Amino acid sequence: MPTEQSISLTNLAAGNMVAEIKNKVLLDTLNGEKTSRYPVWVMRQAGRVLSEYREVRAKAGSFINLVKNPELACEVTIQPVDIFDVDAAIIFSDILVVPEAMGFPYIMEESKGPVFPHTIKNISDVEQLEDKIDITDRLHYVLQAISLTRKELNGRVPLIGFAGAPLTILTYLIEGKGSKTFSEARKLLYTQPDLCHKALEKITHVTIQYLKAQVNAGAQVVQLFDSWAGIFPAEQYNRFGVPYLKRIGDELQNSVPVIMFPKGAWMSLKEFSGIQAKAIGIDWNTGIAEARNQLGAGKVIQGNLDPCTLYANLHDIRQQTLKMLGSFAGNRHIANLGHGVYPDVHRDHLKCFVDTVKEFNI
Amino acid sequence: MPTEQSISLTNLAAGNMVAEIKNKVLLDTLNGEKTSRYPVWVMRQAGRVLSEYREVRAKAGSFINLVKNPELACEVTIQPVDIFDVDAAIIFSDILVVPEAMGFPYIMEESKGPVFPHTIKNISDVEQLEDKIDITDRLHYVLQAISLTRKELNGRVPLIGFAGAPLTILTYLIEGKGSKTFSEARKLLYTQPDLCHKALEKITHVTIQYLKAQVNAGAQVVQLFDSWAGIFPAEQYNRFGVPYLKRIGDELQNSVPVIMFPKGAWMSLKEFSGIQAKAIGIDWNTGIAEARNQLGAGKVIQGNLDPCTLYANLHDIRQQTLKMLGSFAGNRHIANLGHGVYPDVHRDHLKCFVDTVKEFNI
Repeated sequence: MPTEQSISLTNLAAGNMVAEIKNKVLLDTLNGEKTSRYPVWVMRQAGRVLSEYREVRAKAGSFINLVKNPELACEVTIQPVDIFDVDAAIIFSDILVVPEAMGFPYIMEESKGPVFPHTIKNISDVEQLEDKIDITDRLHYVLQAISLTRKELNGRVPLIGFAGAPLTILTYLIEGKGSKTFSEARKLLYTQPDLCHKALEKITHVTIQYLKAQVNAGAQVVQLFDSWAGIFPAEQYNRFGVPYLKRIGDELQNSVPVIMFPKGAWMSLKEFSGIQAKAIGIDWNTGIAEARNQLGAGKVIQGNLDPCTLYANLHDIRQQTLKMLGSFAGNRHIANLGHGVYPDVHRDHLKCFVDTVKEFNI
Repeated sequence: MPTEQSISLTNLAAGNMVAEIKNKVLLDTLNGEKTSRYPVWVMRQAGRVLSEYREVRAKAGSFINLVKNPELACEVTIQPVDIFDVDAAIIFSDILVVPEAMGFPYIMEESKGPVFPHTIKNISDVEQLEDKIDITDRLHYVLQAISLTRKELNGRVPLIGFAGAPLTILTYLIEGKGSKTFSEARKLLYTQPDLCHKALEKITHVTIQYLKAQVNAGAQVVQLFDSWAGIFPAEQYNRFGVPYLKRIGDELQNSVPVIMFPKGAWMSLKEFSGIQAKAIGIDWNTGIAEARNQLGAGKVIQGNLDPCTLYANLHDIRQQTLKMLGSFAGNRHIANLGHGVYPDVHRDHLKCFVDTVKEFNI
C-alpha cells in the first residue's frame, strides 16, 4: 500500500508498493478478459478542455514548465479521473521530451506549437543525436511524475505512459515545426534513406529505454503516438515507420500492454496485425469494420469518434457515441476519440461521451 | 481555325472557331476509347516549379494579379505544355475566385496562403453569400483566359478548366484560412447543418454556372478539386460533400468530361462510382487496386504518385513511376501526381516523370 512518504523510483518497480488496481476494465480488455462494458479514456483528457488544467498551467508559467514539474504534472493527470471518471489516467507529458533528451531542445510558441531551432538536415546533425544517454537522469521529471501519479491514484485506475513513435519524432526533427505537407521530412526519406534509418535507430533505442523506465516508474500501459503516420505513402511508412514500432513491440512484449496509434495510416493497418501490441488506435477516418478486417480478431481497437462530434448537442453526441459502440459489435475495443479532444470543447460534452460509453453494456 | 483577332467569348462556344485537337490521348481515355499509352498531366504544372512562371509572376506583382490578367494567365498555362510536353493544359487560376465572386474576397499572404477577412459564422453571413450573380461579368477574367489559351494552344492539347468543390469552398469560408484540424468547419457542420446546406446550395449553384461558362469559353474537360475532402469523417463527407458533387456531375453530364478529385476521401470512394464523372482523382495514400475495387471498371482513375517521389534521383523517379504504371494494369487511368507538384522540385525531375509515362506502352 502507498505511504505518504516520498517514493523513490527504484522501490516502485513493478508497482509493488502501490495499491491493487480497482478499475480493471482497461487492463482486462487489453489482456483479452471478458468485460461487461468497453473501457473509455480520451486523448488529451488532461488538458485545456478543463479550467482546472488551465489554472495549473498558468501557475506553471509555460507548457514546458508544467511538463517538467512532477507535482503539477501529477495534478493535471489526475484531474480528468476526478472530473470525468474515465477508466485510465495518462501521464501529462509531451512526446518531444525524447528529442530534447537527445540533445535537440524545442521551444513552445503559443500560437504555432513546438519549434526546434536546430533541425536534422544532414549526417552530422544525425551524429549529434545523442543515444547513449542516462534516461533516468535526463527524463527524471517524467519518471518522477509517473511515480507520484501512480501513488496518488492509489489504484483507482491504471496509469498510461507514452512516447512518440520514432518516425513522428524524426519528422519533427527534420521539419522543425508543424507543416501542411511535411515535404521536408518526406524529401529526406526519399533522398537520404540511410541517414533517416540511422536517426530512427537512435530514436528507437532511446524510446525503448524510456518506455522501460516508465514501466519501472509505475506505468501500467504504454501508448506509442505515431501522429504523422498518415502523411507518408504506405510503402514509405512500411519501411520507415512500421519496423521501428515492431522492434519496440518486441522489446516490451513481456512488460506491460502496448497501444500503438498510427494515426491516418489505414493503408498499413494490416502490418500491425503481426506486431506485438495489444491494441491499435485508429482515427475517425478509418472504419471500424475495415480496421477489424485488417487487424484480425486478436487485436484490441482503440478509438475512434470524430473529436468534432463533441461540438454537437448532447443528444447528438449520445447518438453518435451509441452508433460507434454498436459498430464495436461486442469485439475487443477501447472507446476513445479518433484524436485528442479539442481544447474548446465544453466539458459537459466530453462527460456525455464518457458517460454514454460507461452506461453501455456489451 | 483561330485567327489573330481578339476572340470574344460568345463565338468560342463549343470551340467551333478553334483547331481540331491533335493530342487526343486524354480525351480518348476519358471517353472510353482505347489508347496506346496513358495520358499524363500534373496538378500545379503551371506554377513555381518553373522559373519561367516565377518571372511572369514577378511581372504580375502578385498571385492574384496574375490570376486576374488573362494574357499572363494564358502564358503560364501554356508554359508546361511547351516545356514538359504534357497531354493537357490546365487553366492557371484559383479555386477561391468563386467565393470572391460571391462577395467574400480573399487576400494572399505569401507565407500563410489565402486568408478571408470575412468568414462564415452564422446565417446572416450565409445570406451575404451572393448567388444571383452574372458569372460572365464577375469572372470574366477567367473566361477570357480560357478563350485566349484555347486559341493559343491551337489544338495542341485539350484545355482543362476547374473549380473547387462546394464543401472545400465552404470550409475555406468558415475557417478563413488553412488549418491543421479544420475544427471550425467541422464544428459548424455538426452544430448548424442547415446553415451549411444553405451555403452549399448557393456555392453549388454558382459553381455549376461557372463551369458551364468555362466550357462555353473553351474548356474541354473540367476538374473539381475537393482538396479538403479527407478531413471529414466519411458519414459527414457523404452528407455535405458527395451530394453537391453529384449534382454538379448531373448538370454537366451532357457537356465535357468531368474529373473529380476528392483528396483523401478514400472512405467515400464507393459513393463516386455512381456519380456522373468520367474520372476520379486519388491521392498517394489511396491504393490503385483498392480504388479500382471501390470505383468499378467504368471510371477512369487519375493519380497518384507521391509528389515527394520527385525529390528522389532520376533513376528512382523512373522506377517509382513504372511501378505505378504497372499497377494500372491496362485499365483506364490518367497518370498524375497524388497532389500538386511541390514548388521546390527540380524541373528535370518532373520531366522525368512525364517522359516515363509517355514512353510506357499499355
